[in-house]
Amino acid sequence: MIAPERVRDLVDARWFQSSIIALIAVNALVLGVETSPGAMSDYGPLLRLVDLTILLFFVVELALRIYAYRGAFFADPWNWFDLIIVGIALVPTSGPFAVLRMLRVLRMLRLLSVVPSLRHVVAGLLKGLPGMASIALLVTLLLYVAAVMATQMFRDVSPDYFGDMFTSLFTLFQIMTGDSWGEIAKTVTEHEPLAWVFFVGYILASTFIALNLFIAVAVEALEHEGDDEKEAAQDVRREEILTELRALRAEVAELRALARQSDG
Amino acid sequence: MIAPERVRDLVDARWFQSSIIALIAVNALVLGVETSPGAMSDYGPLLRLVDLTILLFFVVELALRIYAYRGAFFADPWNWFDLIIVGIALVPTSGPFAVLRMLRVLRMLRLLSVVPSLRHVVAGLLKGLPGMASIALLVTLLLYVAAVMATQMFRDVSPDYFGDMFTSLFTLFQIMTGDSWGEIAKTVTEHEPLAWVFFVGYILASTFIALNLFIAVAVEALEHEGDDEKEAAQDVRREEILTELRALRAEVAELRALARQSDG
Amino acid sequence: MIAPERVRDLVDARWFQSSIIALIAVNALVLGVETSPGAMSDYGPLLRLVDLTILLFFVVELALRIYAYRGAFFADPWNWFDLIIVGIALVPTSGPFAVLRMLRVLRMLRLLSVVPSLRHVVAGLLKGLPGMASIALLVTLLLYVAAVMATQMFRDVSPDYFGDMFTSLFTLFQIMTGDSWGEIAKTVTEHEPLAWVFFVGYILASTFIALNLFIAVAVEALEHEGDDEKEAAQDVRREEILTELRALRAEVAELRALARQSDG
Amino acid sequence: MIAPERVRDLVDARWFQSSIIALIAVNALVLGVETSPGAMSDYGPLLRLVDLTILLFFVVELALRIYAYRGAFFADPWNWFDLIIVGIALVPTSGPFAVLRMLRVLRMLRLLSVVPSLRHVVAGLLKGLPGMASIALLVTLLLYVAAVMATQMFRDVSPDYFGDMFTSLFTLFQIMTGDSWGEIAKTVTEHEPLAWVFFVGYILASTFIALNLFIAVAVEALEHEGDDEKEAAQDVRREEILTELRALRAEVAELRALARQSDG
Repeated sequence: MIAPERVRDLVDARWFQSSIIALIAVNALVLGVETSPGAMSDYGPLLRLVDLTILLFFVVELALRIYAYRGAFFADPWNWFDLIIVGIALVPTSGPFAVLRMLRVLRMLRLLSVVPSLRHVVAGLLKGLPGMASIALLVTLLLYVAAVMATQMFRDVSPDYFGDMFTSLFTLFQIMTGDSWGEIAKTVTEHEPLAWVFFVGYILASTFIALNLFIAVAVEALEHEGDDEKEAAQDVRREEILTELRALRAEVAELRALARQSDG
Repeated sequence: MIAPERVRDLVDARWFQSSIIALIAVNALVLGVETSPGAMSDYGPLLRLVDLTILLFFVVELALRIYAYRGAFFADPWNWFDLIIVGIALVPTSGPFAVLRMLRVLRMLRLLSVVPSLRHVVAGLLKGLPGMASIALLVTLLLYVAAVMATQMFRDVSPDYFGDMFTSLFTLFQIMTGDSWGEIAKTVTEHEPLAWVFFVGYILASTFIALNLFIAVAVEALEHEGDDEKEAAQDVRREEILTELRALRAEVAELRALARQSDG
Repeated sequence: MIAPERVRDLVDARWFQSSIIALIAVNALVLGVETSPGAMSDYGPLLRLVDLTILLFFVVELALRIYAYRGAFFADPWNWFDLIIVGIALVPTSGPFAVLRMLRVLRMLRLLSVVPSLRHVVAGLLKGLPGMASIALLVTLLLYVAAVMATQMFRDVSPDYFGDMFTSLFTLFQIMTGDSWGEIAKTVTEHEPLAWVFFVGYILASTFIALNLFIAVAVEALEHEGDDEKEAAQDVRREEILTELRALRAEVAELRALARQSDG
Repeated sequence: MIAPERVRDLVDARWFQSSIIALIAVNALVLGVETSPGAMSDYGPLLRLVDLTILLFFVVELALRIYAYRGAFFADPWNWFDLIIVGIALVPTSGPFAVLRMLRVLRMLRLLSVVPSLRHVVAGLLKGLPGMASIALLVTLLLYVAAVMATQMFRDVSPDYFGDMFTSLFTLFQIMTGDSWGEIAKTVTEHEPLAWVFFVGYILASTFIALNLFIAVAVEALEHEGDDEKEAAQDVRREEILTELRALRAEVAELRALARQSDG
């Protein structure tokens, strides 16, 4: 049997990684082509064969990596990500699990775990999420309160936009993104002349919160990525000055001792 | 009678706070369900009962907190916020105050005062408001001046958008948010070929002011939240150096005194 | 005759400034009401009287300020701003100058020169303009080049949007602001399948340039408004350390002189 | 023959540069006028003559600059930019190269290489591009995965927007820019009630990534353009303190030597 170390050399080899990236790219292409009914009726079996072959390669690759790294494999969340994505593809796509067939497209997301720079960017994005939790909760609250109010007030005059809670939530999310709100507000204002107060207030509030969400994320990013190196260099310098000063003081103290002696 | 201290322990207990949060969530759900006429005709009395029970809990909670904290209760503006929101719910919702029934939805906003992280975020948002006052005044002035001009110029050619001051203000606010301005401008430009000067100028001005509003808020946020800790640490370090230096100088002065003595 | 100093005390008095602000507000209101044909037919003469009275006050105020400050009055550009705005209102609004009547609304802009915080904000906005000149030129170039290309390519298939240079420039400015570009692009792409390359490229380029314009303004704002006070405090501290050190060195030098003496 | 140095003085002269800028402006104007069929039928030959004359000037200018700078000319990428743009204009615009006629408009882009401030801005924009590569790849991946999913799911219910991969990619790019997404989502949600999950998820994901792209660019810009001068000044100051301290220590050491001597 081959030693895990040699397998490790294999799976970490540059050409091996590049091959995996190439396979993911081919897989993405195949998935794209498969969306065309014409291509499916002409080359359906071939496309499916390529799909299955690539899946086989992924399974083998994962098996090799598990064999090479053993327990350490399961310590890296990215490996779990790969495992789940490939695992989904292995579930039979007929019967009660038919919906999972859809999820085969997620296999393209393996690019995230394989390309180091993407890995880095995604890790950065995820790190920023907790800092946004409170403001996201605030936005949700604003959305919900506004939806209850809008449904109560505009249910009858504009059922298309505010007929029930779900429709109101959707419409208000749309307004929050600034899409066609003028038209929606006009439809309602025709029947409820004071509705503009609600819409203008809602837009100002959501814009203001979005602005602050934005700034919160930016400030955090700036704080973390700030010129730490420069500051570290300055700290070193300050430390040097202090060391120098203490040495000097010790010498002066010694000098005074000498002076006292000679004086005594 | 129970001592205020024991009541304070109760209202500050973690499980008590969590229960209140749960009650607010249930209340929000009930308010959402109440917007559906179907649910109201089926479960109307039940929903109203839940609503009243929760209101009762809120009143008791507030009474307990007032009893526990006495005067100190009224020193915290968040407590006033709670008091007003619960107070509104107690006003009879028939007769002249029917409109206040609408405001029952505000009870969900108690989440802001109960969840500490939301409290923190809202306080941060409010702190940012005064810094925006001048630019907000400028935006209002731009909006008003543009509305007077647009009403005078386009009243007759496009009464839908610029028929009177109110309509113009609404349309110009819509244009400021960038929503469907092209269509509005086209309608007007068909009759007034030079109207594009007004629209392009207005969009450039409002975008430029909005950009600066944004930056003003961002700069202020960065200044306040800037790496204060790091700087405090550097200040301490600098203070240390200065203290060290002064001690050294005192020793040298003493040494000189000794030297003079021995010299004398 | 009253001495200029006493007039200066008058025009600089707080109540005088507040009165002017109140007059501008009343003027704004009158201008708003005047846009309503109904109000004009009912109260036209009254509104015009109020308008004229306020203009008279403005003329007197300016005359007083010129008398009080003499030459110094003309050194402040804000005074020129007031002078021009009030001057425009004095030009007869019939005959060839009828268009100037429109400009009476600009009188509301006197608020900018009278309210100090608005003055400050506007000065800040104007200071930011030169830093944007190069990017504004770049945007103009992009707009013009794209308009020439779009007119050449799409003139025949979509005359509504790209019929001539002027229409193309307007449409491309609209697309740059992100308004309804999908619809425009769809109309064209139906006839010219490759047109999407142009539209997507144009949107990416204009978004990228706008993003950089934004960042350029933000970086400049941060640099200028940066925590100068803190840094000044740190500089003072560093200066103190250096002074302390030099004094120390002088004392040590003196001490050595003493030591040499006693040694000699 | 004229010496290269004298030619260099000529091509670097201020008036020469200004003339070239003027020529580019005239060329831009001519290209704009040429888009009008009316102007072409009236002044076609004249416009083409002006166009050719300006091209001739550009060729002569380039020849002079190559003669003046020899090899050094080809070291500056901006010169290659000029060379390619003028070169394209020389290719015959009939037969297989007819499409290149379109590219004559690019001649206006010479403004970028001739005006120093534009050169600077464009260089800044290009420097920012590599930092965006990873996030751009992520956006592309999101767009592609979403397009495959949307085509599979919505191909039949909304062929106008999601009929094939190409249409889906276009529609999803449009949604990413926030243009009219509400209408598109409504069309689809009528047939597939759960489609809102896809649209809201896609909008949140693309907004979040766009936000982070923005911040990444801003942080990088701030880091590079940060107040380097101030910091350099502080570093100098710190260096001065350290020098002063070391000199002091040397003196004290000498003093101690003296003290020991006198003591001995």
